[in-house]
Amino acid sequence: MTCFLCQRIADIQAGTNPYFVTELETGYVVLGDFQCWRGYTLFISKHCKPELHHLETATRSKFLQEMATVAEAVCNVFRPAKLNYEMLGNLVPHMHWHFFPRRLDEPDRLSPVWERYATAKDDPSYKPGVEEMNDMRTALRREIDRLLGR
Amino acid sequence: MTCFLCQRIADIQAGTNPYFVTELETGYVVLGDFQCWRGYTLFISKHCKPELHHLETATRSKFLQEMATVAEAVCNVFRPAKLNYEMLGNLVPHMHWHFFPRRLDEPDRLSPVWERYATAKDDPSYKPGVEEMNDMRTALRREIDRLLGR
Repeated sequence: MTCFLCQRIADIQAGTNPYFVTELETGYVVLGDFQCWRGYTLFISKHCKPELHHLETATRSKFLQEMATVAEAVCNVFRPAKLNYEMLGNLVPHMHWHFFPRRLDEPDRLSPVWERYATAKDDPSYKPGVEEMNDMRTALRREIDRLLGR
Repeated sequence: MTCFLCQRIADIQAGTNPYFVTELETGYVVLGDFQCWRGYTLFISKHCKPELHHLETATRSKFLQEMATVAEAVCNVFRPAKLNYEMLGNLVPHMHWHFFPRRLDEPDRLSPVWERYATAKDDPSYKPGVEEMNDMRTALRREIDRLLGR
């Protein structure tokens, strides 16, 4: 069976992934398919490996630096009260960071996102339109480029 | 109000934190207070700051390298099927990484830990005894020392 995230990367490379933001040295930045947490962003490793220590040391270091740059850009663009950083991989053991911007006015703001995640991901009211998604992608890509001086 | 994790660090410095494993350059390694997920470990930043980009660049890089070393040691000692890496801070906005070793035979192994967390943390059957805790702390500290060549 093909890895779900390897397929997503293939879609990026084919130009058919509507969530794609930008490519970094060690991974791809995409917006989440739903935006219950506005600015929900992922950073997908180019390596289909489950754990950080499965990367060679220099690559691991770069992957973590780039993860932090993406997180900073998400904070700068979407201005959360707190960012949640998570790499789980229980369902898809291909390393990917989730960044969830949390807000003071959201329900259950002190809890992890996961209790609402299962319903939010399939709720059509949390799927932004094409234009809104394009604006978010552009803003995030520009901020990442600015932080990287590129 | 004193930050909960600053207080935990003060307890470490006073020699009264029974979960303490070892000190690294940028933070402290402790076992989780409960062990529903055997090997549940935390890495607490020495800086009481909420986000990665609030650290100076070199410190941030070192903090992430050390986070990865702790994660690798948790994998090597506790041999999970998958490790979950999480930095949330919704309740306590002082940076700390949670490492949850996940197992093939646990209930809900494909889900994040958080649905069981609220009950597990107060369940006395998940609180190891002093001897068991000491064995776990020693094994983890030795593996971190080995990985760091110290």
